[in-house]
Amino acid sequence: MTLEGKQLIGSQAVEAKGEPIHAVNPATGETLEPGYKAGSKAEVERACELAWAAFDSYRETGLEARATFLETIADEIEALGDTLIERAMQESGLPQARLQGERGRTCGQLRLFASVVRAGEWLDVRHDPALPDREPMPRVDLRQRHIALGPVAVFGASNFPLAFSVAGGDTASALAAGCPVVVKAHSAHPGTSELVGRALQKAVARCELPEGVFSLLFGSGREVGQGLVSDARIKAVGFTGSRSGGTALMKTAQARPEPIPVYAEMSSINPVFLLPEALKARGKELGEAFVGSLTMGAGQFCTNPGLVIAVKGEALDGFVEAAAEAVKGAGAQTMLTPGIHDAYTQGVNTLGGSDKAREVARGPQGDGPNQCQAGLFVAKASDFLNDEALQAEVFGSTSLVVECADLDEVKALAEGLEGQLTATLQMDDGDIDAARGLLPILERRAGRVMANGWPTGVEVCHAMVHGGPYPATSDSRTTSVGSAAIHRFLRPVCYQNLPDALLPQALKDGNPLNVSRLVDGKREA
Amino acid sequence: MTLEGKQLIGSQAVEAKGEPIHAVNPATGETLEPGYKAGSKAEVERACELAWAAFDSYRETGLEARATFLETIADEIEALGDTLIERAMQESGLPQARLQGERGRTCGQLRLFASVVRAGEWLDVRHDPALPDREPMPRVDLRQRHIALGPVAVFGASNFPLAFSVAGGDTASALAAGCPVVVKAHSAHPGTSELVGRALQKAVARCELPEGVFSLLFGSGREVGQGLVSDARIKAVGFTGSRSGGTALMKTAQARPEPIPVYAEMSSINPVFLLPEALKARGKELGEAFVGSLTMGAGQFCTNPGLVIAVKGEALDGFVEAAAEAVKGAGAQTMLTPGIHDAYTQGVNTLGGSDKAREVARGPQGDGPNQCQAGLFVAKASDFLNDEALQAEVFGSTSLVVECADLDEVKALAEGLEGQLTATLQMDDGDIDAARGLLPILERRAGRVMANGWPTGVEVCHAMVHGGPYPATSDSRTTSVGSAAIHRFLRPVCYQNLPDALLPQALKDGNPLNVSRLVDGKREA
Repeated sequence: MTLEGKQLIGSQAVEAKGEPIHAVNPATGETLEPGYKAGSKAEVERACELAWAAFDSYRETGLEARATFLETIADEIEALGDTLIERAMQESGLPQARLQGERGRTCGQLRLFASVVRAGEWLDVRHDPALPDREPMPRVDLRQRHIALGPVAVFGASNFPLAFSVAGGDTASALAAGCPVVVKAHSAHPGTSELVGRALQKAVARCELPEGVFSLLFGSGREVGQGLVSDARIKAVGFTGSRSGGTALMKTAQARPEPIPVYAEMSSINPVFLLPEALKARGKELGEAFVGSLTMGAGQFCTNPGLVIAVKGEALDGFVEAAAEAVKGAGAQTMLTPGIHDAYTQGVNTLGGSDKAREVARGPQGDGPNQCQAGLFVAKASDFLNDEALQAEVFGSTSLVVECADLDEVKALAEGLEGQLTATLQMDDGDIDAARGLLPILERRAGRVMANGWPTGVEVCHAMVHGGPYPATSDSRTTSVGSAAIHRFLRPVCYQNLPDALLPQALKDGNPLNVSRLVDGKREA
Repeated sequence: MTLEGKQLIGSQAVEAKGEPIHAVNPATGETLEPGYKAGSKAEVERACELAWAAFDSYRETGLEARATFLETIADEIEALGDTLIERAMQESGLPQARLQGERGRTCGQLRLFASVVRAGEWLDVRHDPALPDREPMPRVDLRQRHIALGPVAVFGASNFPLAFSVAGGDTASALAAGCPVVVKAHSAHPGTSELVGRALQKAVARCELPEGVFSLLFGSGREVGQGLVSDARIKAVGFTGSRSGGTALMKTAQARPEPIPVYAEMSSINPVFLLPEALKARGKELGEAFVGSLTMGAGQFCTNPGLVIAVKGEALDGFVEAAAEAVKGAGAQTMLTPGIHDAYTQGVNTLGGSDKAREVARGPQGDGPNQCQAGLFVAKASDFLNDEALQAEVFGSTSLVVECADLDEVKALAEGLEGQLTATLQMDDGDIDAARGLLPILERRAGRVMANGWPTGVEVCHAMVHGGPYPATSDSRTTSVGSAAIHRFLRPVCYQNLPDALLPQALKDGNPLNVSRLVDGKREA
């Protein structure tokens, strides 16, 4: 397939008029063709118009039809074959195996949502039958289902060109909920985006859905991104990226005549707590494993462990020593974009320049442009709590070990943290009491609490929470990974005393969709 | 019980230092004792401190203990006996039977949430067991439950001194979710609030819960209200009231260092669509029934039908004539407060002064202060759509009939409406097609769609949605009435690979709480 460098609006490929956006191969600095002429108000307008026109029809597609559509998208992405992986490698600098895995995850995610759509629990069907003889007042017939919020604007993420981009988790869950989607491609990987966008266009056509179910725009965050979030026909936003980007979208969404929900997954340093017994028993082993998590994918994960917290002493020194050795041996990796590499370098320099943080190791510099040189720093708890610069996320393979005087200071530090995606406990049996003391704090601070693992690697399943209190996300009541993500794009509607002919299928007498229902407060499977 | 006029902070009654707030009997103009000295920062601080201290413990109360607490609150409110009804009558001007009914609803609501807590579906327990042998990567053990968001600020509403105030729906659902609650009493009924607050204090003590589970503050919206919403320990807000009040709280909540969700139920004119066949068959009857709904409780309901939409012609003229007669015969009723009466008078005068709206009937003026004089106006659809003044909510027994040229204009008008709590269809069998054409629009515009009923009267049950798109509420994804309201105050947390000793009861192996679980994507009842 030849890349055309055009906006994909409904079933069309349209050439815009702005300055062309070119991807850059971060491993070589080479500019990649074609250029994608940036879209503007006109393209936003047309995509939103089509999305709105498609909405009422698409949200009422049957469970089977909608599930088949999601599966068809997965099939069409797989049908792109090596072309997709090769282009994504060029645009992201990520290795082949990682991108193949990410493609598997992306397609698996679409198929997971297909199964969720078919099961129909997301409809949350409720029925309180009429009680005409109730005293003092009769009860009318009341039924409830969930319907789609409306067209959703999705922002592609830099660090997952497949799984959090054009057909990633936000798109999959919004489409599953019955929402048309308008994606703003991330400018770092426009070619990958076009390929996946074409697959989506094909799936829409094959499933004979209204063309406005999906559009893909290329352009600037200011013009296309803010334009989408400001458009009255957009009813929710999915975003994965920086804190400044996410909060800007939140502001725009709140300032609209009709404010809308923004699901922004933003900033997290993912604290790892090394509890005393575990540290004593296997500090060295933990240090090595920790650096494995820290340097995976050049640390460019939202769940990268950017903070290690423990009581100071010999055991922690052993951990730091082993981690320092591992950092020194961690090969440099190409980062996703020059911009991300610059921000990383600046973040590391801030730590390095602070008299409160001590550098204990740097990794090899690497050859070529945009190499991520790993880093490990140590600071005191009191300094950490009093210095916002030490608390800032450094997106990449650098982490800070914070030494506490005792477990009380560990708890105080946990309480002082901002909202996080994850919190990790390294613990042995003898640490149960210490862990029990920390757990209520971590539950309040993070969306996912784990023991004896590492935060990188987010399973796409039913129980996953990839979310957490602000600023980890803009809305702690949800997750952006896993089947529960569908709930972000739904709202309840109650139907009172409607004739059967008007009731949606999900609510008709006899339960023709055969979905789980709450009838008079009792669960019917 | 003697009213003391004090703030109820935890287990204490504390005298504040501000200007005293006095209720006024709207039926007589009489000032009621005692005065409630307005609270300030100090009282907000103390209540939030106690709420925060209570949070970790209260959110982990067992299902049975929490349900019993909710039932105990209901028992204690009932134990107040006639004292409560009498004080509420004095402070609100509402009739005895209405307040007795409202007390029944309030206590029924608490008991409904007790049953919801016991059933445990709100925990949304999910378990994806470990798959150590999965290829290419093993899966770790992942479990999810929902936990309480944190302390919640609840604002008492003027129009339901019991059901939407101190122990109303917001408080009941927040407590059910495991959130401590700090209520700001509505200044129109401080005595009623104190009585219910004392009942709540007793229930907290009887159930041996931490005192900070509940506090009740009296004071201004600016100082106490905004103070609460700004406090870092408050994690969500429940509000029922005006659009200006609700949007002010939304702004404050968004401007915090950590933005929090605001559930504000604000403004709705609750359109009623008279479809042609129904109008032809029973226009007169509909006109009379409509005015029954319009004048109920002096029209002081969020779901009061403030707008009637139909195709013009003889049938609609018959409806208007019958409604006009009924309005003329509708006895004046005392409104809740002088402020509400003033706003009502102003709203009616705006309609009356518009050259786009024709007055067709006014009710009797009534004797004494603060009497609601019902009103009925007629306007053309094109004028309605072009004049925001005609679209504004008039809180009270006045409604506007909008005449459309044909069904297409009816649909255009429906599309032009802001978000609503309810939308009503008056329809006969022959109207099915017209109703089917309107339904997708109404679903997008309203939280509850009904046929052949009237919007006033909101059943507290499982299928109810008392919500809707902005500005009906600040968050269309929820309801403030009915058992689903509990979800507003919860967020998911995922537990990865935690030892059984650390897992919360809800997630332990063997399902000791015996709650419904989603295991590997399959529902286990």
